[in-house]
Amino acid sequence: MIKVGIVGGTGYTGVELLRLLAQHPHAHLQVITSRKEAGSAVAALFPSLRGYVALNFTEPDLAALKNCDVVFFATPHGVAMHQAPELLEAGVKVIDLAADFRLKNAAEFERWYGMPHSCPALLSEAVYGLPEVHRSAIRQARLIANPGCYPTTVQLGLLPLLQAALPLVEVDSLIADAKSGVSGAGRKAEIATLFCEASDNFKAYGVAGHRHHPEIIQQLKVLAGRDDMALTFVPHLTPLVRGMLTTLYARIAPQARATDFQALFENHYANEPFVDVMPAGSLPETRSVRASNLLRIAVHRPDNGNQLVVLVVQDNLVKGASGQAVQCMNLMFDLPETSGLQHAPVLP
Amino acid sequence: MIKVGIVGGTGYTGVELLRLLAQHPHAHLQVITSRKEAGSAVAALFPSLRGYVALNFTEPDLAALKNCDVVFFATPHGVAMHQAPELLEAGVKVIDLAADFRLKNAAEFERWYGMPHSCPALLSEAVYGLPEVHRSAIRQARLIANPGCYPTTVQLGLLPLLQAALPLVEVDSLIADAKSGVSGAGRKAEIATLFCEASDNFKAYGVAGHRHHPEIIQQLKVLAGRDDMALTFVPHLTPLVRGMLTTLYARIAPQARATDFQALFENHYANEPFVDVMPAGSLPETRSVRASNLLRIAVHRPDNGNQLVVLVVQDNLVKGASGQAVQCMNLMFDLPETSGLQHAPVLP
Amino acid sequence: MIKVGIVGGTGYTGVELLRLLAQHPHAHLQVITSRKEAGSAVAALFPSLRGYVALNFTEPDLAALKNCDVVFFATPHGVAMHQAPELLEAGVKVIDLAADFRLKNAAEFERWYGMPHSCPALLSEAVYGLPEVHRSAIRQARLIANPGCYPTTVQLGLLPLLQAALPLVEVDSLIADAKSGVSGAGRKAEIATLFCEASDNFKAYGVAGHRHHPEIIQQLKVLAGRDDMALTFVPHLTPLVRGMLTTLYARIAPQARATDFQALFENHYANEPFVDVMPAGSLPETRSVRASNLLRIAVHRPDNGNQLVVLVVQDNLVKGASGQAVQCMNLMFDLPETSGLQHAPVLP
Amino acid sequence: MIKVGIVGGTGYTGVELLRLLAQHPHAHLQVITSRKEAGSAVAALFPSLRGYVALNFTEPDLAALKNCDVVFFATPHGVAMHQAPELLEAGVKVIDLAADFRLKNAAEFERWYGMPHSCPALLSEAVYGLPEVHRSAIRQARLIANPGCYPTTVQLGLLPLLQAALPLVEVDSLIADAKSGVSGAGRKAEIATLFCEASDNFKAYGVAGHRHHPEIIQQLKVLAGRDDMALTFVPHLTPLVRGMLTTLYARIAPQARATDFQALFENHYANEPFVDVMPAGSLPETRSVRASNLLRIAVHRPDNGNQLVVLVVQDNLVKGASGQAVQCMNLMFDLPETSGLQHAPVLP
Repeated sequence: MIKVGIVGGTGYTGVELLRLLAQHPHAHLQVITSRKEAGSAVAALFPSLRGYVALNFTEPDLAALKNCDVVFFATPHGVAMHQAPELLEAGVKVIDLAADFRLKNAAEFERWYGMPHSCPALLSEAVYGLPEVHRSAIRQARLIANPGCYPTTVQLGLLPLLQAALPLVEVDSLIADAKSGVSGAGRKAEIATLFCEASDNFKAYGVAGHRHHPEIIQQLKVLAGRDDMALTFVPHLTPLVRGMLTTLYARIAPQARATDFQALFENHYANEPFVDVMPAGSLPETRSVRASNLLRIAVHRPDNGNQLVVLVVQDNLVKGASGQAVQCMNLMFDLPETSGLQHAPVLP
Repeated sequence: MIKVGIVGGTGYTGVELLRLLAQHPHAHLQVITSRKEAGSAVAALFPSLRGYVALNFTEPDLAALKNCDVVFFATPHGVAMHQAPELLEAGVKVIDLAADFRLKNAAEFERWYGMPHSCPALLSEAVYGLPEVHRSAIRQARLIANPGCYPTTVQLGLLPLLQAALPLVEVDSLIADAKSGVSGAGRKAEIATLFCEASDNFKAYGVAGHRHHPEIIQQLKVLAGRDDMALTFVPHLTPLVRGMLTTLYARIAPQARATDFQALFENHYANEPFVDVMPAGSLPETRSVRASNLLRIAVHRPDNGNQLVVLVVQDNLVKGASGQAVQCMNLMFDLPETSGLQHAPVLP
Repeated sequence: MIKVGIVGGTGYTGVELLRLLAQHPHAHLQVITSRKEAGSAVAALFPSLRGYVALNFTEPDLAALKNCDVVFFATPHGVAMHQAPELLEAGVKVIDLAADFRLKNAAEFERWYGMPHSCPALLSEAVYGLPEVHRSAIRQARLIANPGCYPTTVQLGLLPLLQAALPLVEVDSLIADAKSGVSGAGRKAEIATLFCEASDNFKAYGVAGHRHHPEIIQQLKVLAGRDDMALTFVPHLTPLVRGMLTTLYARIAPQARATDFQALFENHYANEPFVDVMPAGSLPETRSVRASNLLRIAVHRPDNGNQLVVLVVQDNLVKGASGQAVQCMNLMFDLPETSGLQHAPVLP
Repeated sequence: MIKVGIVGGTGYTGVELLRLLAQHPHAHLQVITSRKEAGSAVAALFPSLRGYVALNFTEPDLAALKNCDVVFFATPHGVAMHQAPELLEAGVKVIDLAADFRLKNAAEFERWYGMPHSCPALLSEAVYGLPEVHRSAIRQARLIANPGCYPTTVQLGLLPLLQAALPLVEVDSLIADAKSGVSGAGRKAEIATLFCEASDNFKAYGVAGHRHHPEIIQQLKVLAGRDDMALTFVPHLTPLVRGMLTTLYARIAPQARATDFQALFENHYANEPFVDVMPAGSLPETRSVRASNLLRIAVHRPDNGNQLVVLVVQDNLVKGASGQAVQCMNLMFDLPETSGLQHAPVLP
């Protein structure tokens, strides 16, 4: 059994990690820290876990964490970077669900997250934890930067289009119109995500600039192997708890108009355990992946015109966060990639 | 035009007061204070009011408020009691939407609200603002204690039963199983009322003691003119924004088993503009009163047995709070009681 | 008072018409027909209207409707076209909330609505009821084709861009990513819009072709005065009752890059009573127009680049349907345009 | 592997059975019938099951079902009673999730379900599938009447109180105020459960008589071993997908006032795998059991008075329907009782 520690397990990615790991056949939850909840039982804060998690929250304490094989950081941005170096030194693998190691450029991190980076030297070592792109690097990694939820949908929705010899779409005018459930905003006492603010309501946000934008651009450049990528990204807040749907718009490049895009996507993802390319004409629903690690994609070309529309759904807390982190853990420890992640989606 | 001031207009009862008063034919919004938002436009905080309210929030300032004819306190408990005396002194009428003047006993206030009462002398003068019970006193009042939302439903649902010469039901074993929309919890940054906590979820709360319980008991004693009232009160949190349904259970007293309860209720409320006794067999829905000052009642006697079931619905922000406060204002200023309160419910 | 008839008042646009007209200072609800509900009280089907509407539903009967000054059709597509000619003949004005008179081309109507048009001769006479574009024609009209909900947001969101001498944006690659509350699907017994299907879920639909698409294209050509318009339209179903947000993407034309788009929109709509151009940087929420006839717009140009993002919100049942129809009625009968439509939005 | 057939798998209890059985370690889904969907893939109707269920729906066909070890009926009331006899004859065990075999009295069945019973002889043989009460009979049964969702909460919430030598509460004035998520109404095209009818709304229903009432009364008599049971039952419809909370009110019998009710409940359920008696003072939430087979109970005695308040939560589709059916199957086939039912609840 892999000995697992979690730092900061009181948020939604934390409780989702707990749910997944408590049922994982090869993981043993050994320690979970929370400064605020230290001393109280996990199951007191999250009664859903009564009978599944017997641990108490403990004070953040690197000594206890050093006895783990792997430590997940389900913390606000800026926590992992302070503790990761010492854990790595002690031979513990680290998976950060926050943004500390996602951006390769420390200046860009500072600009978007409003704090200097405390260990920029680790940025180049950190592996971006998107198995469908970086599987072999993840297997070898000590330190994983788990992708953001929006970036996961955008990358996996565009990946087959960008990896052809010539891109199949015009890469300077991509659009991602993304819609997220409210759990993506985290479990923080804030007015904007109160039930009475977010329910029976719909809005865009972050149009002038969202932290996931530089992450997406950085990674699209990696995928396409070129630097001239531009994408307009408009996230929206949707009154549902879990779930994310991203509608991608890409103009088909002149040389690519004869492409069979359905076949392209199906072939690209044929062997991926968690990416489901749905039949032509499908309209994926967020609930079709609720509480599961699946991401489903449908490819449309309205009126057989030059605009490609790619629809991507995932559960933002699973494939968009904690499930993906567990998938990385499985790879890092040579477990079957799907271990502990085979739960069927919950519908209705 | 009545010159109106509002203290603390940034919560849900505040914004609802603003909506109602901005459209009131005889009220002029003159000043609205908020320490936190002072200087910013009301319509910037609540874009729904763009074009309806041109005021800016100002610093709490008794001088400006003294130029008003009436001041509403849409503040947390414990604010109005500190400012009401000076305003009353200056000839300004005061309507408090919080609990400062609801309980007649200062010790009981202190016990339930955790603070000493700063002007207990006013407790006996304050009129409990339930027009269906205290209409004539309200007309004469300088100071109104606007009822709590739960107490409004319980009182109006039991009133016809308690005012017979002998009570028609056993008054020592009343039950109020109440369900409230989340807006009743206010517009405060708290985890318990986040969308992801309150949505797709249902729970009871306050079973061990809720602040509305002593208010209900105090008033039921007034209604029935006796002291031996006992009521079990269990409030529940329901995933809807506005709306409250209270299911009342009362055992029919032996001497009352031949009563025509439907007729009793219809007669009692025949002339009330805002209480609607629905036809026998009706099942009132919260949305049938959404955004309106109506309270609808249905009376059931299952299997013609000895258990009476009274269903009461209201919009907790209107008849349960701000609409009722405006109804009191209308009475206090000799306006038609329904002025500014005739909006039809919004369905769906 | 204008004598008003409604055909088919049992759906959501019907009950919204009833709510608006019951409170309209110059309208008198005279007759409302429904084959299915004939004989029963409107207030029995919609208890929200108890006390506001005293009418019973009656059998569809042209004789009674001919005594009205205006008849609204809140019916499924294909009903109005069979009854409108006889009513017009009798001097009754007709406002159709369905699609019967929206498309100018009868063949296109037949293609999208699956039935032949029964009075194609009226198609050219019918005036498209978007006051912000066709105000003077509406004043003169006998027959109004009330716009679809999606088309209203797309047209008003693009209008200022298209009416310059040269379009300010590239008109062959417009994108409308639209999100609608579920009430847009109507009050029909269907599995797809059950609570348990639509709640806590999000999906796109109609990607392969939606009936509002030809309507939008037809009207954009009118607005721009040119024929080479192309727009990708992807509607999404959102778990809220009322409300629509459309995110419009338009590439700024090379000659227009110095345009002050904020000023353009503000100037264009400066005198419109129901179109609110919000301050630069605003993020409109659907609830900011809930239950009102307002449509709010925000204009963004991310990173000051070449992609314009226009956000448009409306209540799909009001400005997107019944409110717009009442606005047309006001114009047709020389009433103040805002009569009966000044209700402030309901928030929360 | 147990060969499993499902009749009528297109409703919510059906799809939940599919989810549970597809992941069950000892069950093999062999056949699933649906007249309406015959020929199409299960995963086409329920894309959530893509990758989990490869079956197609087939025409109802007893021959295929006879090859199964057990057949679940997830059908409307009145279907199972026509097919069960032949299946039982063929040695197939039958678990009916509808009401065909719940009421022991055929006349009562006919009264409440509006149809004669086609095989009344089986009523006495059928075992009521509530393992916490009838575990040993279930182990021996050929035919299971799976309990209704409301009755499960009422019985398990009252059970410890009724099985003392003298009942601990007054059994002639019990009250069950129950609140159900909308999925309890099934996946049928009906207006009353449309999103726009059930969302942001709350109401009681069935006050004049609900089919679960006679089932509850019948079973309470069994539990208490006496005939003078009376219970007022008021179900309410709550805007959530899954989840049921029942608030039970019982007056403590004079002789029982010294009882330690918390200990009573804890002891009674100490060995039950799916009943969780929460610590004193707890307030169970429906989401704490979402998508799991757990039922959680909290016992309150407000003000240490004579009114006991028992709060019970379950997922109406799992412990209230399909999970309980699988629990029965496990018992009938000598599997570990928790097989395939150990999924942790999904929160948020």
